[in-house]
This record gives sequence, C-alpha cells and structure tokens, in this order.
Amino acid sequence: MSAAAISLTLDPNRPRADQVYRHLRELILTGGLAAGQRLPATRTVARSLGLSRNTVLAAYDRLAADGFIDNRRGAGAFVSADLPQTNAQRAAPRPAISHRARAVSASKTGHQWIDDPAQRMLPFAAGIPDLSQFPFAVWARLLARHWRRPDLAEAYSPDPAGLPALRHAIAGYLQSSRDLDCTPDQIIVVSGAQAAIDLVARLLLNPGDTAWIEDPGYPGTASALLAAGAKPVPVPVDGAGLDVAAGIRTAPTARLACVTPTHQFPLGMTMSLPRRLELLDWASGAGAFVLEDDYDGEYRYTGKPLQPLFNLDHGRVIYIGSLSRAMFPGLRVGYLVVPAPLVGPALALRRHIDGHPAVTVQPALADFIAEGHFAAHLRRTRTIYAARQDHLLDLAGTLWQPHLQLTRRDGGVHVIGRLNAPATDRQIAGTAAQTGVVLRPLSTLHHASRHRHDGLILGYAGHPEAALTDAANTLAEVLRQPL
Amino acid sequence: MSAAAISLTLDPNRPRADQVYRHLRELILTGGLAAGQRLPATRTVARSLGLSRNTVLAAYDRLAADGFIDNRRGAGAFVSADLPQTNAQRAAPRPAISHRARAVSASKTGHQWIDDPAQRMLPFAAGIPDLSQFPFAVWARLLARHWRRPDLAEAYSPDPAGLPALRHAIAGYLQSSRDLDCTPDQIIVVSGAQAAIDLVARLLLNPGDTAWIEDPGYPGTASALLAAGAKPVPVPVDGAGLDVAAGIRTAPTARLACVTPTHQFPLGMTMSLPRRLELLDWASGAGAFVLEDDYDGEYRYTGKPLQPLFNLDHGRVIYIGSLSRAMFPGLRVGYLVVPAPLVGPALALRRHIDGHPAVTVQPALADFIAEGHFAAHLRRTRTIYAARQDHLLDLAGTLWQPHLQLTRRDGGVHVIGRLNAPATDRQIAGTAAQTGVVLRPLSTLHHASRHRHDGLILGYAGHPEAALTDAANTLAEVLRQPL
Repeated sequence: MSAAAISLTLDPNRPRADQVYRHLRELILTGGLAAGQRLPATRTVARSLGLSRNTVLAAYDRLAADGFIDNRRGAGAFVSADLPQTNAQRAAPRPAISHRARAVSASKTGHQWIDDPAQRMLPFAAGIPDLSQFPFAVWARLLARHWRRPDLAEAYSPDPAGLPALRHAIAGYLQSSRDLDCTPDQIIVVSGAQAAIDLVARLLLNPGDTAWIEDPGYPGTASALLAAGAKPVPVPVDGAGLDVAAGIRTAPTARLACVTPTHQFPLGMTMSLPRRLELLDWASGAGAFVLEDDYDGEYRYTGKPLQPLFNLDHGRVIYIGSLSRAMFPGLRVGYLVVPAPLVGPALALRRHIDGHPAVTVQPALADFIAEGHFAAHLRRTRTIYAARQDHLLDLAGTLWQPHLQLTRRDGGVHVIGRLNAPATDRQIAGTAAQTGVVLRPLSTLHHASRHRHDGLILGYAGHPEAALTDAANTLAEVLRQPL
Repeated sequence: MSAAAISLTLDPNRPRADQVYRHLRELILTGGLAAGQRLPATRTVARSLGLSRNTVLAAYDRLAADGFIDNRRGAGAFVSADLPQTNAQRAAPRPAISHRARAVSASKTGHQWIDDPAQRMLPFAAGIPDLSQFPFAVWARLLARHWRRPDLAEAYSPDPAGLPALRHAIAGYLQSSRDLDCTPDQIIVVSGAQAAIDLVARLLLNPGDTAWIEDPGYPGTASALLAAGAKPVPVPVDGAGLDVAAGIRTAPTARLACVTPTHQFPLGMTMSLPRRLELLDWASGAGAFVLEDDYDGEYRYTGKPLQPLFNLDHGRVIYIGSLSRAMFPGLRVGYLVVPAPLVGPALALRRHIDGHPAVTVQPALADFIAEGHFAAHLRRTRTIYAARQDHLLDLAGTLWQPHLQLTRRDGGVHVIGRLNAPATDRQIAGTAAQTGVVLRPLSTLHHASRHRHDGLILGYAGHPEAALTDAANTLAEVLRQPL
C-alpha cells in the first residue's frame, strides 16, 4: 500500500495522532488493509499528511499496543497476521428489536404523553403534585444525616426487598391509612409503580397470557403488560367500576385482572363491594390473580375508603402503590404488597431484574415516614388540593357552561370534564395547547374504540389557584370559539 | 343465625371492635353469612362475647360503612342483599408463577450466592469494594447541596435516559478511561448492571431466542436472559476469551452474545483482538448483537486496555457498565451505551419497565464525577487494591503451596486460585466457611458440566491486608487438613 492511499482530511481541532490512529484502524477493520499487509513507512505517511514523524509514530505505537499491527524492527509495520479476514464493510445493522419492544415503542405512559417536559408543569396537567409544598430542606437534611455516617452493611449488601426500616414504615402507613392487613415481610420496594406492574406481569404471566385492563384506563398498565409479552384485554368500566361480567364474557381464562378500585383511573368512581366480591370470585374460579393499583390512595378528601381487595381475599391480590406522587415524581419509589407465598418467587425474580432497590434514598425515606414528615406533608397538601378542586369546580360553574361539565370527586388529583360541544376532546385539547393550557383528552385513554367517549382530564393538585383561574379563563375562550 | 354461632376467641392485646369486625367480615366473605341473612342483634352478640354493646355497634357500623351489611332502622342488620353468592371458602391459591419466574427462582446472582449478608464482608468475598475508602462525607454534602434547592423541573419530569449532566459526566469518563467512542445521547442510565442486561435482553430478544453466554461466566447474565424468556447457551472460554468457533458450532443463529472482554469473568483473561474481530464478524453475518459487559473496567493496575468492542463495530455492540462497584454496591447506578439507532427503541421500552432513573442520586453523582471526586477515589483505591493483590500473591506463595496456585491479574478485584488437592472446590469452600473464610467455588460459575473445572475465587479489594493475612493463615490450615 502506498502512503497516498492514506488520504485523510485532518480536523485541526482534534488530536492528530488520534485521527491517524482511527483512520488506520478503520481501514484494517473494513478490509482496506488486510492481515499481513505492510503499512507505509511512518516517514512517508508523515510527509504526505504534513505531520511530524513523531505524530505518526504515536499512532503506529497505539495500533501496535491495541494488537492491530506488528512493528518489526528494521522491516517496518504490518497488519497483524492473526487477524481474521474480515467481511469487508460490515454494514451497520438495521436494528431488529424484539416484538415486545416494538409493541410498546409507539405507546406513551403517564404524563409522558406530553412531549415537551416544560408543558408538564402547566395547568391542567394531571398527575403532578405541587412541589412548592414539599419540604425539600427536611429531605436534604435526612439524606445528609444518613450518608455522613452510613450503615456500611446496608451499602454493601442491601436487602433485595428494600431496607427493613422502610418496609416497616410503609406497612405502618398502609395499615393506618388504608387498613391494609399486611406485614413488612410482604412488602417489596421497587423503582416506582411502573416497575411494580412490570414485576407482577413477569412474575405471573407467560408470553401470550391475557390480562384484563380497565377501559378507559392507565396506559402504563397496558404497556407494562405488553413489555412482559402478555396480551392486555380491555374490559369496560361503569359506575361501579370494572364490569366483571363483561370481562368474563370477553376473556374468561385471563390470568390477571388489573384494577384501580379506590378511584378508577381516569374516571374516578369507586368499585362497589358487590363488584369487588364478584371480581374475586371470578379470580378464584379461574385461578387468576388481581392487581390492585391504589395509585392515588393518599388523596381522599371526604369519607372513608372501602376495604382494599387485598383484605378480602387471602392470596389472589397484589396491592401496589407509589410514594412518588405524594412526594415528587422523580423519587421513583413504589412498592408491592404480595401474598406470603409469592414473596419468595417475587424476590427471586426481582434479583435478576434489578438486584435490589437503590440504597441512597431508602434510609432517608424511612426516616421521612417514621418521623412524621410524610403524614404532615399529606395533611397539608390534602387541605390545599381539596380547596383547589373546590376552586376548579367554581370556575367551571362560572366560566365553562354549558360546554364542559365537571364532576366532583372525593379524592385524587384530577377531575373529568364531560364535553358538551360539537368539537372532539382532541380538537379542544389541541386548540388549548396553543394557548398554554394542557388538557389530556379522555379518548386517548380508551383502548377499544367501541367504549370510547370524549372528555377532558383536568389536573388541579399541582397548580396554585391563581394559575387555575388564568387557565380557566383562557380555556373559556377556547370553548366559546367555533371550531 | 344465632349469636352463639359467632364464636370468637378474643385477643386481649388487639382492639376488640376490630376483631369482631374482621370475624364477621370473614364469615360474610366465606359464605358463613349469606347475602340477605339477618345478623344477630348487637345486644345479644355483646352479651355472648362479654363485650360492651358499643364495641359491637362500632363493628357493625364499620361493616355497614364498608358495604357488607345494611342497618335497617328497627329491623336489625342484614348482610347486604346485593353481594354475590360467594364460592364458599375461596381457597388460598397455590401460586402459579410464570415459567421465567420459575426458571430463575433457584438461581442466585452476584455475591448473593452467599446467603448470610454478614458473610459477604469477610475475606475472601469477591466483588466488593473497600467502603472505608469511600468519601461518604463528600457524598452526603453533594446530596444535601442539591436537595436543599432542587431543580424542580427535574423532580417533576426526569429524563428517561438519565439526567443530562450525569450522562455527560459518564460519557467523559468512558472517553478518557476506556477510549469509548460515544456521545452522552447514547447513554442510558439504569438501576445497575443487572438492569442493563435485563433491558438489553428485553429489547433484542424474543421468548425462546438463544444468546451466547460465557462458560464459566457471571450467573446474573444467564438469569437476566432467563427472566426475559430467552435461552442462554453456554460457550466455553479459553486463554483468548470466548471461543467464537465453539459458539458458532453450538448456536450459529443466536441473536446475542454476552461477553466480558476486558477481564473475562471470572477467569480474568483479556479477549484477544483476533477473537474480538471474529466475534464481530459472526455477529455481522448472523444479524446478532453483542453485549460488552465491562464489569470491572475501573480497576486496571498495569498496561492499557484493548479497544472496546463498541469501537470496533458501528451498530452491533451494546456496552454496559456500573458505577456501583467503584463506589458502593448499594448505589445501584449502571448504564448502557447503545448504537444511535437503538436509543429510541431502548428508551421507549425502559419507560414501560421503570419509567426513568430515580432523580435523588443523579445530580449528586453527576457532581461527584464532574468535580473529580470519582477520579480521585479511583486513583486512591487503584493503588490500594493493587497492593492488596500483591500481598495476597505473597501470602499464597508462602502459605498455600502446593495446594492452591494463584494467577496475577492486571486488574479487577479478585484472583483465581487453581486447586491442587484431592478435595473439590466446593468441599474446600464448605470447610473454609466454617472458619469464617469466604470462598466462591469456581465450579459454581460453570453452566455446562463438560467445561467444568475446580478452583476458588479470592476477592481481595474489599479486605485490608491484615484481614487478608489472618484469613490466609486460616485457609492454609484448611488446605493442609486431610478431607
């Protein structure tokens, strides 16, 4: 090979020896320089590229150190003879991703349906708390207190179920707030509710198994099932929650039913006790499990919640929840409460998925709960959020009639607005987005088109009353516009 | 039903109304009290159980609030008529877990093969750093500094690929330490190396797809593949790393090859350049991908590493690493570096698995790297660990001859001891465990028995020289004992 074949346009801003090295490496990798072939003398290359000989020597030395060439004293440099004859021009592959990766690649989960992260903080974005209320100073202090003098055993070898003190704190919270009959041993701490659904799906379902999901429902549940290779089957909901009889007609042999009995997502109704028992009876007969997603169990403004499904059956219900919604979404700490016989298999599987929950956050979180900061934060925000729901309903009564009817809820962080307009919910949301008002169309949460109805999801918890008022006035103009 | 049927042994240490409530609830749930049936009068129940009437009234009120009974003024209390006829005695199910959950339930990953967490800190436990060297005060300060005044946008809506500042810091570290050709956009932060393998397996493999794993090799790789429903195929290693020709003979149509080219785990050899190119050529021809697990890339004591596989091919190699080993195992932060066309599909899938990495740790970690603490910690521990390997080799030369031959390595945190004894490695490890010396038998890391050879894995990095000396003396006695 002649030095002229080494034609290389040098970038003056990058190290020159590195550029020569990479160029020759690429020639060798793509067959432009074959195994055993002699390289041009460094002096020749240096002259032809206008470089100092030392620069070229540095590149050759690095090629030799990496095994690409042999420097034979006196005879020059040769491409290493033991390199395989490469398939010249290994083409960059078209990525052939798995079926499950393809199945979820188009779907979006939670508030990630909004592409622009900045928009996710504007009214009426749903599912976000008001972070100005969160006691970050306390959080910072608890983190620092623990990590200045950490428990080394914990840092070495964390419990795959989660720090015992944290599981104890969560069990106590669930007992007092939800009357949940569980022990700390039944709790598994994971990276958020999404990871909890993922673990349940992989623990209980084989590829191709069917699972009931609520329609309309939380899109993350469907996609977690898809990501686990399972087949989600939409089952309609009515005023009493999941229509169990419809589920039995559609998919009697499903292996799992995923429900949000406390406040159905997104519609907000509570699953009635007869419906709960009907669901558990079906599960018992079918040998199926029930995933009870208590995604907003923290926020209830009036009344007492019904008994969790978990308490009504001994062994078929997995209860999941998250601490991220009440604290801050980035926290990414959720938990499963599993029947005792499933604890061992669930932990074995989680070890092979992500080993154990990260320890940095857990001791601080355990203290945050045990020292009463969590309960105080919930009390404070519960009052604020309830007032914001009242405020939003007042605004709706004044500004949005007769186009948009809101329904009061006894908890949660959003309400549903029923449209009474010629435009679809997607059209309204699209127009509103251009004015800086974020609305999620209800129709985007429907899985099967035959159950579809239009509406808008209005989150209020994360937005101060003044911001709600401004956005409500803007939306009023949108609603009055002919589309 | 007569009050006498309510036979209940009261626990004096638990609230009585709660016990009456639960007992009646259970009777209703299991069909002992049918829908529409009249409950005994509270006064009668109170008398028969020796309780105040108010206690029983409280239980009845709670049953009514939960929807189990109707209190009809004047007529008494009845089990709600709308409850379904329950399948009396819903039996607790035998948990029917998924095939993948069953496949991994017996296997153990990483140092979790040691059941007793306390033992995982004793010499010669492998894979653990010396936490007494870690600057926890700095770590605590960085955490507190960030969380006192957090970036709210980040706390609301974290980047699913990881905090940009952290990805930037990781890319810079990989470029300087491993010469890795990547940009921050190609980095995806996940919950440790195990989660990285899990994501790769689920991204690229369909259920039943085969994947090459090294034999002997890291058990967590095999089990992550099993947990994803894939079929790991053991391929033997020799002095130049994975025996590619053997892989091609055994499973030519595998979709993925998982390798540890820098230091093969557990044996420690470096994959030669010809072998690297042979592997990439096979992958190119087969349309397969390569998972390059650089599990201990941080610890190299002499020489320069070879070029990563990631640099030698444009599109077929996914590089994974972890920050947990160099910092502390509980940290649980790992990363993937993926070819540009795979970034989108990988992020879409990760959204549905765990959403995004937890934000608590990421800003502090980005600062820890960017401000030089990570590099300083690596420099300091590299010197200490290299000296400990020297010390261990000296001890072996003096105390363990001719029973156990250690081989020096140019990096990593453990060495392999070849046994020259009538006993098996499991027998030696079992006897040593009784004296407080932790050894992992090499044979436990072999997947296919035909490749099996005996040996012992001796971790040195996490153990001070005095502890190594003590354990070496104890082991010397074990080795001299007739078994």
